Amino acid sequence: MILPVIVGLIYGENQVYLAFGIPMAILIATGFALTFRKPKNNSVFSLEGFVSVAAAWILVSLIGALPFVISGDIPNYFNALFETVSGFTTTGATILSDVESLSRSGLFWRAFTHWLGGMGILVLVLAVMSSNDSRTMHMMRAECAGPKVGRLVTKSSDSARILYCIYISLTLLEIIMLLFGGMPLYDSIIHSCSSAGTGGFSIYSASIGHYNSLYIEMVIAVFIILFGVNFNMYYYLLIRKFSQVYKNEELRVYFGLIISATIIIAINIMKFYGGFGSALRHSFFMVSSTITSTGFATADITQWPVFSQTLLVVLMFVGSCAGSTGGGMKIARWLILVKSAMKELKYVVNPRAVVSVKVDGKPVEQDIVRGVSSYAILFVCIMITSLLLISLNGYSIEESASGVITCMNNIGFGVGRFGPNGGFGGLNSFSKVVLSLDMLIGRLEIYPIFMMLAIRKK
Amino acid sequence: MILPVIVGLIYGENQVYLAFGIPMAILIATGFALTFRKPKNNSVFSLEGFVSVAAAWILVSLIGALPFVISGDIPNYFNALFETVSGFTTTGATILSDVESLSRSGLFWRAFTHWLGGMGILVLVLAVMSSNDSRTMHMMRAECAGPKVGRLVTKSSDSARILYCIYISLTLLEIIMLLFGGMPLYDSIIHSCSSAGTGGFSIYSASIGHYNSLYIEMVIAVFIILFGVNFNMYYYLLIRKFSQVYKNEELRVYFGLIISATIIIAINIMKFYGGFGSALRHSFFMVSSTITSTGFATADITQWPVFSQTLLVVLMFVGSCAGSTGGGMKIARWLILVKSAMKELKYVVNPRAVVSVKVDGKPVEQDIVRGVSSYAILFVCIMITSLLLISLNGYSIEESASGVITCMNNIGFGVGRFGPNGGFGGLNSFSKVVLSLDMLIGRLEIYPIFMMLAIRKK
Repeated sequence: MILPVIVGLIYGENQVYLAFGIPMAILIATGFALTFRKPKNNSVFSLEGFVSVAAAWILVSLIGALPFVISGDIPNYFNALFETVSGFTTTGATILSDVESLSRSGLFWRAFTHWLGGMGILVLVLAVMSSNDSRTMHMMRAECAGPKVGRLVTKSSDSARILYCIYISLTLLEIIMLLFGGMPLYDSIIHSCSSAGTGGFSIYSASIGHYNSLYIEMVIAVFIILFGVNFNMYYYLLIRKFSQVYKNEELRVYFGLIISATIIIAINIMKFYGGFGSALRHSFFMVSSTITSTGFATADITQWPVFSQTLLVVLMFVGSCAGSTGGGMKIARWLILVKSAMKELKYVVNPRAVVSVKVDGKPVEQDIVRGVSSYAILFVCIMITSLLLISLNGYSIEESASGVITCMNNIGFGVGRFGPNGGFGGLNSFSKVVLSLDMLIGRLEIYPIFMMLAIRKK
Repeated sequence: MILPVIVGLIYGENQVYLAFGIPMAILIATGFALTFRKPKNNSVFSLEGFVSVAAAWILVSLIGALPFVISGDIPNYFNALFETVSGFTTTGATILSDVESLSRSGLFWRAFTHWLGGMGILVLVLAVMSSNDSRTMHMMRAECAGPKVGRLVTKSSDSARILYCIYISLTLLEIIMLLFGGMPLYDSIIHSCSSAGTGGFSIYSASIGHYNSLYIEMVIAVFIILFGVNFNMYYYLLIRKFSQVYKNEELRVYFGLIISATIIIAINIMKFYGGFGSALRHSFFMVSSTITSTGFATADITQWPVFSQTLLVVLMFVGSCAGSTGGGMKIARWLILVKSAMKELKYVVNPRAVVSVKVDGKPVEQDIVRGVSSYAILFVCIMITSLLLISLNGYSIEESASGVITCMNNIGFGVGRFGPNGGFGGLNSFSKVVLSLDMLIGRLEIYPIFMMLAIRKK
């Protein structure tokens, strides 16, 4: 919270002292109070890892919403909470109808939550602290995205540090590239934080379309695609293990999907933009923004042909790579699910044939296949329950469903009322809390929040 | 096809001679021609069972569409094919905007396809013929609905006979009950055939709402619920194995869902009907029509609160019991999926705990759990592909999605353009074929059609 205060000071916004001072005081007091109670047993297992992560994210969201309320940027606490959760979970859904009226420091804090949430709040803490190794591993596993989290190096806290170094380097590189394109420094920092977390908060109602610059659009599109790649790949590139990158099926599917969807949509929308070049530009930007679940926009897709819209919705569900900052179900999960379904087809024909599910040329353990299936089922069940609760608002089924989908997949915009310009403010407070939980469930990939609820019952 | 000819003769419709005569001649010629080529190997395994069923259903649909074209009831062949597939698969989706203009024999044939398709066309053949037992078993398995098909008695053709006896008895009972309510004999037969297959074709545009009779609505609602029950349960009741029925979890969930959804929706729609009694009547009818995927209507649900509509859409997905004539994913599958997901949650907390998935108090084999997961994944993948193809029509995403969902789940009506009054006629011919395949895939539960396509590639 020191960073937004600095931003406020530069722009002469005096409300920052109270707006960020009070939450900082609360955080310090809470932390201090917690250190008084020493746990009898220091070991962290799977369950403790999940619950710590869930508790930390909820606490950080509850307190992270305060600056908006105190500064008067977002006076209603439920709105502020929704916006903060949307920030930390890198969803990018907003309750604001006029984002440009916010203070500079408020806009910075909003985009900075994306950056923090993208790689993981606790992963950052673990990267900074030198900590017990099994503790670190269980927390990283709970906070990182994907069906399984591999350690890059033997020590987990070192892994966390490597990941954050890559993350910071890429963010800085994007800031520099955007500055070259003539974007002001403040805007570059905001949009780079937003891209890095694949979040989607902008400072203009027209999002990236505001700049109307091919260079800026291409830089941002390429960077959000890069942030949607499994960060382990960058590590492998750094240590020159090129074969590891080459044989990564998820990565190939990811790029394959981006290229084919871009071309198909460009052909489909060509007549709207009077030429293939212009169509390709918008198609590429929107495909990269959608598959990574970022939610930046350069065009109003509701005007596009239904086929293109449907294809984008499908990409939202597919999602980006495991171990990236992107949202959605993740390609790695789909790969395992589709491959195991194909295996089953062979099994139905010939029950004696033993076929194993292989990804990256290596057989996938039955445990992981089962885990991924269960994940998908829980995901659908939570989505149905949320849809029923949200439908009490009386919005159309299509709108309600798109609201739930966009929140659970951490995308940021839906259709109709939940379009890019923030219709979430019109929901009742109960629905805002439900969708906030959905965003957390989507970001933390279900288990932590479930564990937390299960624990409270005991 | 002799039955619709008799109906035509009674009502003096002379076109029936040609309309049904030509298809009958084609069927006899085809059958006769096929007997000339004796197979070298008579044994039927899993693959042969699946492919025979798929081929039979496609052939029967292609030829079953001819009477509509020849009689002039539905002049366009693609429309007639869609209507026939919708009939055999007990979907009940229609391309007709004015059903009342059809001939009596045409309407009978349309409803009779529901009756034939409900329990299974080949199961009927197997019940009539005394056949090689392993052959029968593999075909029954391919045609009956649900994650696993158990034999009632040691001999499969006897099982088929028992099922059809129960099916015919229930249909006759419904005809008699409807006659008591003052419904004309012709109408009673049509609606009983339609109920028995949980199809939904009616002879009035207002569907069951036409009669505006509480007695008729309640009789039909109760019978479609009965047809949505696993038929094995009736057999157990007949041979007095009450404990088998009592410990059937699927049945309990089925009735539990019907009762709770009816009450919740009744409360939600109370203010629209000026009283709890009237609300309960409509709620009960629409819940039973939806959960069994029948598609009869007494009320225009698009006027209901969105919450009730959403709940009904959820029930469409849940579906009825395995081994019934109803559609949807089937409760048995959901039970296995949800239970295995819950097991996984426990496993994440404590990887050493070995918890098995239990349904009806017995552990479910890992094979079946895997099969059900794969089924759900294939179902979703086919749905997404179909949605993309249908979206080329330019209808809204909501309408396109509801069209695909209603066809794959064999329900019969969607929202917007695909409401109860048959908007499917407006689709292009390509989309009609896609949705016809979806209906077949939904009814035959994916594998047969897939196998058939795979075989053709070899």
